Amino acid sequence: MGSRHRRAERVAAITTLLHQNPGRQFTLAELALRLDASRSSLSEDLAVIREALRAQGLGDIVTTPGAGGGVCFIPALGPEEACRVVSALCRELSDPRRLVAGGYIYMTDIIFSPVWASRLGRAFAFLFSLSRSRRTARERSTPPGGAALGADYVVTVETKGIPLALMTARCLGVPLVVARRDFRATEGSAVSISYVSGSTGRIQAMSLPRRALEAGAKVLIVDDFMRAGGT
Amino acid sequence: MGSRHRRAERVAAITTLLHQNPGRQFTLAELALRLDASRSSLSEDLAVIREALRAQGLGDIVTTPGAGGGVCFIPALGPEEACRVVSALCRELSDPRRLVAGGYIYMTDIIFSPVWASRLGRAFAFLFSLSRSRRTARERSTPPGGAALGADYVVTVETKGIPLALMTARCLGVPLVVARRDFRATEGSAVSISYVSGSTGRIQAMSLPRRALEAGAKVLIVDDFMRAGGT
Repeated sequence: MGSRHRRAERVAAITTLLHQNPGRQFTLAELALRLDASRSSLSEDLAVIREALRAQGLGDIVTTPGAGGGVCFIPALGPEEACRVVSALCRELSDPRRLVAGGYIYMTDIIFSPVWASRLGRAFAFLFSLSRSRRTARERSTPPGGAALGADYVVTVETKGIPLALMTARCLGVPLVVARRDFRATEGSAVSISYVSGSTGRIQAMSLPRRALEAGAKVLIVDDFMRAGGT
Repeated sequence: MGSRHRRAERVAAITTLLHQNPGRQFTLAELALRLDASRSSLSEDLAVIREALRAQGLGDIVTTPGAGGGVCFIPALGPEEACRVVSALCRELSDPRRLVAGGYIYMTDIIFSPVWASRLGRAFAFLFSLSRSRRTARERSTPPGGAALGADYVVTVETKGIPLALMTARCLGVPLVVARRDFRATEGSAVSISYVSGSTGRIQAMSLPRRALEAGAKVLIVDDFMRAGGT
């Protein structure tokens, strides 16, 4: 591979690292070591990647200056891509073959689909980061990612919210916490609450291990719902 | 952005598209249209990306020649990266703070972690595609991705297997199917089976909507387990 390909090869490697670790802060020193390149080359590479991602509406790279600074990838869905995704989802859901007995629409395949969870998780993470960054424009100098954007965790309740919540947490670079329907001895002491389910009218419980969340942590709740939702 | 950056910009955009759609087949015509580039430029770009990914142990690009051909990205974990991941997982699990009453190890945070699910899903998908491709070396000319590698679906049972199974399915480019503990009217007719749980000794049930799997489909089962596993 000739030297004229050096930049393109580094760009491919950096883009891959960023995509495999969305929301994570990389320092330039770390990238320089891993890719055996100078910081000035890396800065140019990152400018090229940022330009390409913006042009295609595929995400953004946030650079933080200073000693503790670095680079962090925020996946995004540009307006055009978001329109395409929503239209495709509407077409999918309108398919008459989805009707099941009782007038329900079968959507379990969409809810558990890695492709849909990934697309919608990206949209959720982007919309959340947008709404937060509008509110906290003053705090722009804090490191990027979900934590700085106001969420330390994404929280959901089993089962159907998990794929979307997982992908949203992945894009924001924060952990996922899942409330369970029943208490598990293997998870240590837990907090359980009872509530009246909106869909069945019956009393249900949900349980969260005490050590799953730190006191005072800020959470973003992502869950599926149908009609009034169960939770 | 000068013309000397054109290749690097295309490489960034293509790498992003491949990472957002692992296991999906892109035709060169589709990429040419999307990136406003000639097929010969794209072929060179893809060669650069393949080289960079292989050198870093970050994945592979499988190109299928011919009219219906195209390019497909298989995420991977090279041997070095796989060793790093397994060592880090062992260190995590050995932390004495993970001990909870009853002698259990708290690992819920790892099981639901987007970072761990993503790393291990990549490893699972890669190992599965390796073992299949060894057995079916004769079938190399079929299109790549999970389906051609022998799995039409990844199947798991709620709840804790979902993150890993979702990420494995995502890397293989196939749908995820989740067996539920109870039957849902909203999912149409379903097949339910009863079994004796290995961990509790009680009879449990699992249920799968009839329309979730096609008759004769091949599935890869990915689930969590602890001791004998529940399922």
